Amino acid sequence: MGEALSSKEHLLVIFYQELPASLVGYINNKFSDAEVTVYRPIKDVPVPSDLWHNATVLVTFTTLPDLKDAKNLKLIHFLSAGLDHLVNHPILKETDIPITTSSGIHGPPIAEWTVMNWLISSRYYIRTYEAQKEHKWDSKQSYMQGMHDQVGKKLGILGYGSIGRQIARVSSAMGMTVHAYTASPRTTPESKHDSGYIVPGTGDADGSIPASWHHGADRESVRSFLAIGLDHLVISLPLTPQTTHLLGPEEFAILSDNCTHPNSKPYVTNISRGKVIDQDALIVALKSGQLGGAALDVADPEPLPKDHPLWDAPNVQISPHISGAGKEYFPRSMEILANNLERMKRGQPLINSYRRGKSY
Amino acid sequence: MGEALSSKEHLLVIFYQELPASLVGYINNKFSDAEVTVYRPIKDVPVPSDLWHNATVLVTFTTLPDLKDAKNLKLIHFLSAGLDHLVNHPILKETDIPITTSSGIHGPPIAEWTVMNWLISSRYYIRTYEAQKEHKWDSKQSYMQGMHDQVGKKLGILGYGSIGRQIARVSSAMGMTVHAYTASPRTTPESKHDSGYIVPGTGDADGSIPASWHHGADRESVRSFLAIGLDHLVISLPLTPQTTHLLGPEEFAILSDNCTHPNSKPYVTNISRGKVIDQDALIVALKSGQLGGAALDVADPEPLPKDHPLWDAPNVQISPHISGAGKEYFPRSMEILANNLERMKRGQPLINSYRRGKSY
Repeated sequence: MGEALSSKEHLLVIFYQELPASLVGYINNKFSDAEVTVYRPIKDVPVPSDLWHNATVLVTFTTLPDLKDAKNLKLIHFLSAGLDHLVNHPILKETDIPITTSSGIHGPPIAEWTVMNWLISSRYYIRTYEAQKEHKWDSKQSYMQGMHDQVGKKLGILGYGSIGRQIARVSSAMGMTVHAYTASPRTTPESKHDSGYIVPGTGDADGSIPASWHHGADRESVRSFLAIGLDHLVISLPLTPQTTHLLGPEEFAILSDNCTHPNSKPYVTNISRGKVIDQDALIVALKSGQLGGAALDVADPEPLPKDHPLWDAPNVQISPHISGAGKEYFPRSMEILANNLERMKRGQPLINSYRRGKSY
Repeated sequence: MGEALSSKEHLLVIFYQELPASLVGYINNKFSDAEVTVYRPIKDVPVPSDLWHNATVLVTFTTLPDLKDAKNLKLIHFLSAGLDHLVNHPILKETDIPITTSSGIHGPPIAEWTVMNWLISSRYYIRTYEAQKEHKWDSKQSYMQGMHDQVGKKLGILGYGSIGRQIARVSSAMGMTVHAYTASPRTTPESKHDSGYIVPGTGDADGSIPASWHHGADRESVRSFLAIGLDHLVISLPLTPQTTHLLGPEEFAILSDNCTHPNSKPYVTNISRGKVIDQDALIVALKSGQLGGAALDVADPEPLPKDHPLWDAPNVQISPHISGAGKEYFPRSMEILANNLERMKRGQPLINSYRRGKSY
């Protein structure tokens, strides 16, 4: 395992929280031939120049060196999937240091979080849980009225990236049909491919799962998509000026009016950013019954204030931006790094390479 | 839709609870050419002989006529999957009236229930739920310690029938590997097939999902299976003298000792009957940490008494025998009936046909 980095190299890992000892051990072990430093920045104190100067490979979330401190860096690997918050940094704008991201590692945990929330809602899990707390064996009859399953439901995914693809894979296995929406058209087999890192055994590498593909960068295209009769809408888009409040009163009405499921109204899942949804409109749509429920891993703002009405909106399940988290996060990101270091050695193109000048 | 039964036929549906009007309407609509009677038996009062005599097709859960009242019946369709409770009834033992079951319709709901429980446990959903009730945006850090996903986990399914196959399908999409256990050997491609009713778009018709197949009717064979290093054990077996207390202290120890997952101990899911598990041993294994958790839709006895220690065992999720329930239950069972009535007309073999002399 240690051969991806030679003994001449110095891997610097900068992370804003204390990493568990087991994880530090894992990293040291994975790159055992190289010198490894795991550093937690101290608030308002710059990272020591020595550290920057020594480093040949940098692993980081957001912290970057000044240009003058980056001379020895031959690769920067980000622990995040997107770099939209850093596009104006000189390292990104003015150097050609190869940069890679952790795109692709969020698919399995976020797909699990998504499907879990759907099922909790459709299978009345809260009732089960509260009954168990009271040691109460509920009557079966109380579950028969609206409990239903996901077979045959139509799932629309706004943003068919690595996360949407793993949601699609699991949903398809559950008997649902998948409909993909992307900003640019995906009309050729090549354009449907996922060219980034994929956790083995997951995802939709060749884009063969969707029953239909839709696209467009404007609101009207999105509305046409929402009108195809969806039972589930998953929002997996980056936040941009164009996607801010992309889903509002009219969009929820279109979703609702076109849903023909006999047992449920449309369910909205947001794993993107809170601001993609007009949150007040969402609350109204949930209260009116236009929507059947919502799973939200993101909110506007975060943390969501204690007195915010979203907390108690009907059939809403809120979690604190944790859908992508878990024990596998770091090891998978390090797997991408090790893979790319091997590719560099062999002169092959890197996976998850950041293309300068494109924010996504 | 109505053509499956002609106007000369009389469909009698006997169910122990009041059926919702929408469901009665559904049945009438589906068999609109025939006379349809939906009857709810009154406690301690026999079903009127007239009803029996008129009926040419009977749909029932457990209620059956005496031999003398069954003369006009050309098909009996059961709303349950198994008939083990009725094998000694004269209608089953002494007539050759074709009998069919609803086997196969439980796959999707029970698979959803199963996967939901796994994810609630591994993704710390209870913490999320309780925090939302308090309007509390938890720190991400509190989720990072043990939350993990299902990718790469080894799932063992004791009893690879229609339910196990749909669990396998979803699990495989989640990146897990599946290992099947059956009583009799399934060494040929034909023997691996599911020949019963399958909800379209679900299941594992040709048995291609499992990475390995195991079999045996004795306890030693089961123990060998439990020793292959499983992260999940799903129990989907009928209750027989041989399967009573099949899982006890030794079996839980074998499971635990052979599990090599870095982030979790074996998780047991029981969707069969409570008595298949030695419940006291299960509580001990959960308390000791030998097992990581359990999802139980069945208990011994049912209803589970209020003061039973199982309610509060660590990481146990109990539901009141509802995993197979839902809005789709009746329509799917009626779909099998309609399909078989068409087959009868065409002289084709029936699906889900009960073979007299075999209890399973």
